[in-house]
Amino acid sequence: MKLIIDCLGGDNSPRANVEAAVLAMQKYPDLNLILTGGEKDILAELNRLGFTDTSRVEIVHAPDAITGDDKPTDAIRLKKESSMMKAISILRTDESVAGLVSTGATGALVAAATLRIGRIRGIRRPAFCPILPTMKGGIVGLCDSGANVDIIPDQLREFAIMGSRYLETVFDIKNPRVAMLNVGTEREKGDDLRKTAYPLLENEPSINFVGNMESRDLLTGKYDLVVCDGFSGNVLTKTTEGTALEMLKMIKRDIQKSWKYKLGALLMKKMLMAEKNFMDYQNYGGSVLLGSEKVIVKGHGSSDASSVLKCIEQAYRMELSGLNDKIRESIKEEANV
Amino acid sequence: MKLIIDCLGGDNSPRANVEAAVLAMQKYPDLNLILTGGEKDILAELNRLGFTDTSRVEIVHAPDAITGDDKPTDAIRLKKESSMMKAISILRTDESVAGLVSTGATGALVAAATLRIGRIRGIRRPAFCPILPTMKGGIVGLCDSGANVDIIPDQLREFAIMGSRYLETVFDIKNPRVAMLNVGTEREKGDDLRKTAYPLLENEPSINFVGNMESRDLLTGKYDLVVCDGFSGNVLTKTTEGTALEMLKMIKRDIQKSWKYKLGALLMKKMLMAEKNFMDYQNYGGSVLLGSEKVIVKGHGSSDASSVLKCIEQAYRMELSGLNDKIRESIKEEANV
Repeated sequence: MKLIIDCLGGDNSPRANVEAAVLAMQKYPDLNLILTGGEKDILAELNRLGFTDTSRVEIVHAPDAITGDDKPTDAIRLKKESSMMKAISILRTDESVAGLVSTGATGALVAAATLRIGRIRGIRRPAFCPILPTMKGGIVGLCDSGANVDIIPDQLREFAIMGSRYLETVFDIKNPRVAMLNVGTEREKGDDLRKTAYPLLENEPSINFVGNMESRDLLTGKYDLVVCDGFSGNVLTKTTEGTALEMLKMIKRDIQKSWKYKLGALLMKKMLMAEKNFMDYQNYGGSVLLGSEKVIVKGHGSSDASSVLKCIEQAYRMELSGLNDKIRESIKEEANV
Repeated sequence: MKLIIDCLGGDNSPRANVEAAVLAMQKYPDLNLILTGGEKDILAELNRLGFTDTSRVEIVHAPDAITGDDKPTDAIRLKKESSMMKAISILRTDESVAGLVSTGATGALVAAATLRIGRIRGIRRPAFCPILPTMKGGIVGLCDSGANVDIIPDQLREFAIMGSRYLETVFDIKNPRVAMLNVGTEREKGDDLRKTAYPLLENEPSINFVGNMESRDLLTGKYDLVVCDGFSGNVLTKTTEGTALEMLKMIKRDIQKSWKYKLGALLMKKMLMAEKNFMDYQNYGGSVLLGSEKVIVKGHGSSDASSVLKCIEQAYRMELSGLNDKIRESIKEEANV
């Protein structure tokens, strides 16, 4: 299997990306990689890590990075030589390349994926599906977490199909329980979008729709997949992350106020560190872009090597599982009904 | 000043509501109250508390409660004798009554307020504005937190005007910094609603608009007021509350795993309790319904007496400050431009 790794655009790029590439090749003997970025930097990093098997890795020199400041459409048009656009171009033209992992700018990646790679027939737009930890030790998928801020009701049904196939094939979750994010659990709740989408979800045969969900129940473990528009999905993920971070900061700050607290914190250190780790989204891999013709995984901008490695593994498993074929089947059956 | 207290519909009703009523009258000598609910229960509660000044309190017998299961429109039509609808009816017809405090069903309250009490001229719909704590020890208002799930762009401007006047008059915040909830901070970010609203907010002379805000920054203290549609406002508040609660639960559970953690927690008990208290929304009062012709404050369903007292105080201060007149002025000036 061949994947392409965009080695620029993250806070710890290229170092974290190259290190993750090496770790992934060590773990999966059948995995070959193309790395885009500054050739000299990538080579130096490979040397530092003692990786010498040049038959398994190809470097494509593309020293420009796309940043969050670049307008997505401008990035596509004007930064063709950037590491991300070069990667997209190879992914588009080279049939042997199965997928792409990037820690670069989200907007540019979504735009380039949509315009250059194309989508699965029957899917209106690709959508992000990150995986979050639940308080019961399981996981919950969220689709869409931000790729589509303006949607029509039937797209929520598409998100539900894609997310269900993803959880089944990559995470072995049988018959994933799908909930729709709403302002209340009763079926008549919500805005026009949600009210129209409810019967569409209810009547979709390829998913296990269990009803509406309130955002406060996201982490409870009652649901396997939550579907929502990209705007509220963005609010949901960033609020969860933001609140957890602010609370940990508050604890850290308040500990300084007394020697008793400091001692207490010392005794609880291992536990608090484990909890911090548990709440850290990056430990659950990247956001996969479901519905794209080829596998695309977006890692957090602040990813370290172990987070990028998780993203590469996700891409590897998505391709291996034949996820896109399964999404195609569900969509096709739908069209035949 | 005369206010009306709906004494049914909360988890701790009527006890918490009546106790709060008594505390409020003790604190504000010029405050008279009407209490709606089961007459016998309310009287028993007043007796238990030793409150005997019958000149300051009037009981209106209305033993039916509206619950979350009642459809709002049905509640208005069919439950006219309920404590909430009776209160709304008095608020509508009795000019001497300035406002209403309720811990009952939100949907029914919003519907009844809109249909029976009416709105300030120039405001399309009333909107909820709860107050949340920031990590810097200040507060941040959020408007709309759930009264209007489908809105047009200009309503975000109305929310900004109402929320700004509220923070100025009731919380003494000068020139409150208004941000619009969005998926990124750049001005071109967001869905159609946000993109159209941006210049409307920017050009509104009676507010201090500082730009877009990402949901993770809600509690940082960088903003005084956040405006959003009721759907994402609901997601934002419930996610913040839900994540904080789940984290505290996680800490509580993990402490049991070792004697070291238990000892550590014991040393940190005071701090953790203070933090729990700090994160408890109820300590910041209820959600006020801005834009309604009369003052309406909605307390959390699980409010205890001290939370209901805060709601009554909020209603008292809103009326005293002449908030609605100030909103009217801003809207009028707008119309004259």
